[in-house]
Amino acid sequence: MRIFDIIDRKKNGNTLTDEEIRFFVKSVVDGSASNEQIGAMLMAIVIRGMDEWETEMLTQAMAESGDRIDLSGVDGIKVDKHSTGGVGDKTTLILVPLVASLGIPVAKFSGRGLGLTGGTIDKLASIPDMHTNLTEDQFVSQVKRIGAAIATTGKNLDPCDKKLYAIRDVTATVDSIPLIASSVMSKKIASGADAVVLDVKCGSGAFMKDKRGATRLADLCIKIGRKAGLRMSAVISDMDEPLGNAVGNSLEVREAIEVLKGQGPSDLKELTLRLASHMVMLAGVADSAEEAEEMALKSIYEGRAINKFRQLLRAQGGRDVTEHPDLLPGDKFKGEVTADRDGYISSVDAASIGHAAAILGAGRLKKEDPIDYGAGVYLCKKRGDYVKKGERLMYLYSKSQKLIMDAEDDIRNAVSFSDQRPEDKKIVLEERF
Amino acid sequence: MRIFDIIDRKKNGNTLTDEEIRFFVKSVVDGSASNEQIGAMLMAIVIRGMDEWETEMLTQAMAESGDRIDLSGVDGIKVDKHSTGGVGDKTTLILVPLVASLGIPVAKFSGRGLGLTGGTIDKLASIPDMHTNLTEDQFVSQVKRIGAAIATTGKNLDPCDKKLYAIRDVTATVDSIPLIASSVMSKKIASGADAVVLDVKCGSGAFMKDKRGATRLADLCIKIGRKAGLRMSAVISDMDEPLGNAVGNSLEVREAIEVLKGQGPSDLKELTLRLASHMVMLAGVADSAEEAEEMALKSIYEGRAINKFRQLLRAQGGRDVTEHPDLLPGDKFKGEVTADRDGYISSVDAASIGHAAAILGAGRLKKEDPIDYGAGVYLCKKRGDYVKKGERLMYLYSKSQKLIMDAEDDIRNAVSFSDQRPEDKKIVLEERF
Repeated sequence: MRIFDIIDRKKNGNTLTDEEIRFFVKSVVDGSASNEQIGAMLMAIVIRGMDEWETEMLTQAMAESGDRIDLSGVDGIKVDKHSTGGVGDKTTLILVPLVASLGIPVAKFSGRGLGLTGGTIDKLASIPDMHTNLTEDQFVSQVKRIGAAIATTGKNLDPCDKKLYAIRDVTATVDSIPLIASSVMSKKIASGADAVVLDVKCGSGAFMKDKRGATRLADLCIKIGRKAGLRMSAVISDMDEPLGNAVGNSLEVREAIEVLKGQGPSDLKELTLRLASHMVMLAGVADSAEEAEEMALKSIYEGRAINKFRQLLRAQGGRDVTEHPDLLPGDKFKGEVTADRDGYISSVDAASIGHAAAILGAGRLKKEDPIDYGAGVYLCKKRGDYVKKGERLMYLYSKSQKLIMDAEDDIRNAVSFSDQRPEDKKIVLEERF
Repeated sequence: MRIFDIIDRKKNGNTLTDEEIRFFVKSVVDGSASNEQIGAMLMAIVIRGMDEWETEMLTQAMAESGDRIDLSGVDGIKVDKHSTGGVGDKTTLILVPLVASLGIPVAKFSGRGLGLTGGTIDKLASIPDMHTNLTEDQFVSQVKRIGAAIATTGKNLDPCDKKLYAIRDVTATVDSIPLIASSVMSKKIASGADAVVLDVKCGSGAFMKDKRGATRLADLCIKIGRKAGLRMSAVISDMDEPLGNAVGNSLEVREAIEVLKGQGPSDLKELTLRLASHMVMLAGVADSAEEAEEMALKSIYEGRAINKFRQLLRAQGGRDVTEHPDLLPGDKFKGEVTADRDGYISSVDAASIGHAAAILGAGRLKKEDPIDYGAGVYLCKKRGDYVKKGERLMYLYSKSQKLIMDAEDDIRNAVSFSDQRPEDKKIVLEERF
């Protein structure tokens, strides 16, 4: 079997065999497929597509391409959550302690941010002294002890995805449902959870621009996950505007803490509670979605959720930023953006805000870029708000005045106005089971 | 402008702008486009296609990507010939001296073999002491002096094509009409000829498997060449079976010499004369194709063609293999393949013979492979011949008995028999002007 012939077959629109898909994955991992061959193959997959069966085979082969995490020592149904990624998405920071506070073990393996804004681990790393890298033993024993952990591990999870993702990122081959589904689900299968709730983002700040595509992706992931023996469900959520008000690592930790304390912006609260209810349902701990959401709300108002977060910080060495948010890094320079007219805000474009935040230092424009944990954007106004000319729209935080000026183009493009009040938009667009 | 966005646009089936195409070519040559990006882009071009206008822009940008040869110092219309490549194709070795013997300057830049069997330069290099690499000055002054030269030069001609070709070769992106046309014509434009005759091969041993594709390729190349100011015409020729009887470098030189002396296999003679007549017509030296072919035949029978070849050998330092063919390297081991039944030979598959010849040592299975000039296949029988069981079909030549055994599978697959005499097949399938 030659990688050349497999590329040729996909180029011609053929359905690949299990053997061919496994050979491709093996060749990616052992380096016998060259980068130009991988680039060509990915483009052929994006244009010619892969059917459900091929995507399932690819997912399985990728899941088996490296180590797997063994969570069998942890009692109960281990529920994981995965977001396809968006701007201002800090739900993981809230969900892990919140769901764990209900007695459901949550073992969250996360990566650093692949997209423009930092990933969960980057956000966590903005907390002083927090350990974000645990050995498998440390990780498992922490989950056993306190029911929660968020970390990367030294384990070589899904090396095929790492290689493919790096190449997809530069070859315009990210936006493919089979490639996204196999990337998401292979990592989930390899990381040992029993149940997974997917948060499929949809809109300008997400891979999936429309609801139809997002729903197809969710349904495909659910099918693949179930075939692999996982309990699955999914939420399709809006990503036309950033989630919550804060975009940037320490800013988002601060906002996550607010929600854990029962405050915070309503869109973030609503989506987080819905995801929590899915996780609780998959764990089999509640009889209905309403009951599950009620349990989560109660945990927040009784302070159990924020306590679990404190416990998580302590377990991983982090300073107690729940009591002392000022310990979180803040940036020296603060820019202010004001409205240049009266009117309703008709949109705050997630993609532009994400790009601006990356310029300010909150994310990576290139893989090697360091992250400035204090940098970011804080939205004072969002879609539907009425503003007067000169009223403050957002704050920008950065290490240098120059970066604030560099971000201005994106910021100007981000906000649109209208004279009419825009129609209400839901944060949860659809749920899939 | 970013290479990512250009890939993305072609992936989505857009027509690229002149600026985007030039940026792509520049990025390939200066190394700012990574190999995975080039692989992905080539695959997008193969699947989505390029229209005539894009192909023309790509050709021009590639032609301008490196040095150009200046033949303006040579008087007369400089006529070049280009073959898209096939098995046993030694027409260049015959045409250069033949056409030059008619007073038409032929300045032939050639490359080493990219496909399975050696290129013209490899064939030439099998002649003892022959210099195949000339400086531009040496090259031009030789053409001025004797009207003919065949060589590579140290000039950096079309570096974009070199890079793209190496990547196309391993990513299953060779068989694309826009990519083949731009590769062929950019090199021709850069190498300074005034007129070009294309020999577009068609069949199992060629890139183009069917006549429709070959004709489209020929017509596209003719259009692109004319836009660049070249006189153009094309011949579509059969490559289902090898051209002539000899496949392998020194074997082919020997056969070319036979044709220059008025002997040799009829298919090779017929195609060579037709190509010669096209070259003569483009040079404006004859009034009709018949007259042009007559001139070429006369030069062969009067010994002027073989004399010109001798002159060419002398000019480039080669031993006189026209008088002493035994000076050509021959291989120690000789295998014989015989018929396992009575019947007509219905086909001798060019692709299988080409692959067998490469295994024997005549070509390169991998880029780095050295070439064994004496290795190859000599066909004693071809399509349409009637053979008795046990009769000799071909000889195999190689440095080792083991390679002869290794080539056997391909050789067995190459020859098919039938009880009926197969229909006659023409070597020249079509001519395009």
